[in-house]
Amino acid sequence: MKILITGGAGMIGRKLAQRLASDGALAGKAISKLTLYDVVPAVAPAGAGVPVDLATGDLPAMGEADRLIADRPHVIFHLAAIVSGEAEQDFDKGYRINLDGTRSLLQAIAKAGYKPRVVFASSIAVFGAPFPDAIGDEFFNTPLTSYGTQKTIGELLISDYSRKGFIDGIAIRLPTICIRPGKPNKAASGFFSNIMREPLAGEEAVLPVGESVTHWHASPRAAVGFMLHAASLDLARLGWRRALTMPGLAVTVGEQIAALRNVAGDRVVARIRRQPDSFVEGIVAGWPRKFAPTRALELGFTADASFEEIIRIHIEDELGGKFA
Amino acid sequence: MKILITGGAGMIGRKLAQRLASDGALAGKAISKLTLYDVVPAVAPAGAGVPVDLATGDLPAMGEADRLIADRPHVIFHLAAIVSGEAEQDFDKGYRINLDGTRSLLQAIAKAGYKPRVVFASSIAVFGAPFPDAIGDEFFNTPLTSYGTQKTIGELLISDYSRKGFIDGIAIRLPTICIRPGKPNKAASGFFSNIMREPLAGEEAVLPVGESVTHWHASPRAAVGFMLHAASLDLARLGWRRALTMPGLAVTVGEQIAALRNVAGDRVVARIRRQPDSFVEGIVAGWPRKFAPTRALELGFTADASFEEIIRIHIEDELGGKFA
Repeated sequence: MKILITGGAGMIGRKLAQRLASDGALAGKAISKLTLYDVVPAVAPAGAGVPVDLATGDLPAMGEADRLIADRPHVIFHLAAIVSGEAEQDFDKGYRINLDGTRSLLQAIAKAGYKPRVVFASSIAVFGAPFPDAIGDEFFNTPLTSYGTQKTIGELLISDYSRKGFIDGIAIRLPTICIRPGKPNKAASGFFSNIMREPLAGEEAVLPVGESVTHWHASPRAAVGFMLHAASLDLARLGWRRALTMPGLAVTVGEQIAALRNVAGDRVVARIRRQPDSFVEGIVAGWPRKFAPTRALELGFTADASFEEIIRIHIEDELGGKFA
Repeated sequence: MKILITGGAGMIGRKLAQRLASDGALAGKAISKLTLYDVVPAVAPAGAGVPVDLATGDLPAMGEADRLIADRPHVIFHLAAIVSGEAEQDFDKGYRINLDGTRSLLQAIAKAGYKPRVVFASSIAVFGAPFPDAIGDEFFNTPLTSYGTQKTIGELLISDYSRKGFIDGIAIRLPTICIRPGKPNKAASGFFSNIMREPLAGEEAVLPVGESVTHWHASPRAAVGFMLHAASLDLARLGWRRALTMPGLAVTVGEQIAALRNVAGDRVVARIRRQPDSFVEGIVAGWPRKFAPTRALELGFTADASFEEIIRIHIEDELGGKFA
């Protein structure tokens, strides 16, 4: 089985590649080739037992998608995207990569005349306020960002290209990934991870919102699990409604902090500095807080068991089992 | 005020142009120029008191949209589209005109740096079965045709380009237009009009479904009214949810026939020949039947008063007040 990951240099792409290389198989079939494609060079997973091909390029460029799928990968994880903040600041670039890039890929597949499994990474940004308390599977898509608009369009294309028999596709709406590894970033949602990751690393972190703020989380490991399950599942069970909200954990910031205390103690929690920021509070107020992802649960997608587990996964996968 | 109608040679485009030419004004402002654009030459409205420009071209072609809006029309009615059946048969053509064409137009406007009112003709094809009995304003979009997918994408673009301040846009989902003038066509929905129009013209018409089938209708005159209202309304009242289901009449085929009897008598009704067709019955079963278009009604969009009125409008507008 040949596998292609677009966005292979990104956080989820890297972790997915590592897992696939380590498993050596997907859906019971041995992996014969793993291609990691991105605009910057990806890194081959450590100790990969499968052949890994690293490719760079500009997906929406003329002929690029045709070249990319020339060896007809059986499973394509399409993760490549301009992220929310950048797509909002650079309107044309967001549409070019997130819409044109996705369409180029799907069109190249249709033209090649074979029918791969395509797993499209979508986002809860396809929803826009006002929301019900818990967003159900039939809530409508009224995105309030260009990124959310482009992801919604991607979902529609995945369903239509599947219905027409060009691909066997599924779009999975990922929760906010927490604890996001790496350096603190300036994304408005960054603090959900920062206030966990930085204290565990012995650093101070700023909490800009109140403890009652609720958000929808999944660990990087859970996100990789969603990807693998989406690649293995019999999609006929979905009919032509191919976009699914993934399960997650709806927890308050206060519950995050309590979980951190349970796992790592008061000394670590004391590194969180409360510094309310009404600008961030305002942005966060427009975000979805909670979902009722009934379809995904019925189809066997599973969330993290608890926020404690999310913290332990971070300590295990990113910190070698120890915290400061 | 300069007005552009794309799809100006189509049925709604022609009727809208005729009405604008006859009114000489829109939203209280005199019309200085009316451009009718289509892939085939449109016909200037009879007795137009305003300057009419007839233009032909291929909207998604490079540079075409820029040329089309070079004189910065204040109001753009974007009606040009490949219809449902053809978009399903010719996948690439449907996406090229319905998605690329719409995006080219919006992108040309963004590049020109002015902010026209854009009224986008959408469709109830943005919804796909299974449905609730009456589809509310927050029901989700799961189209089951490429045409419906392309219209949903158009709606998303209208909302996003509006939110970003490039246009002041609105997407209106038209009911099935009834009584559609002209010859019987092979569209599966054609019979809803055929069984009214043909008997009124002294011809026989085939009814392929049972009388209990319910459908959602608006007269051509009501559709033109929606367009004009959409062009005049203060869209700030819509927030960024710029797609609206238009009001219509949910009537059964039996109620259509009873209305025809009331207006035109048994002699006309006797020209309807019942010839059940399970293929058509099957297609129609997958269509929306009824809506609860609360937002549009609150915003002042008005449907036809009754199916009798729909029939009388046809007799008045298409048959010179007489029927056979």
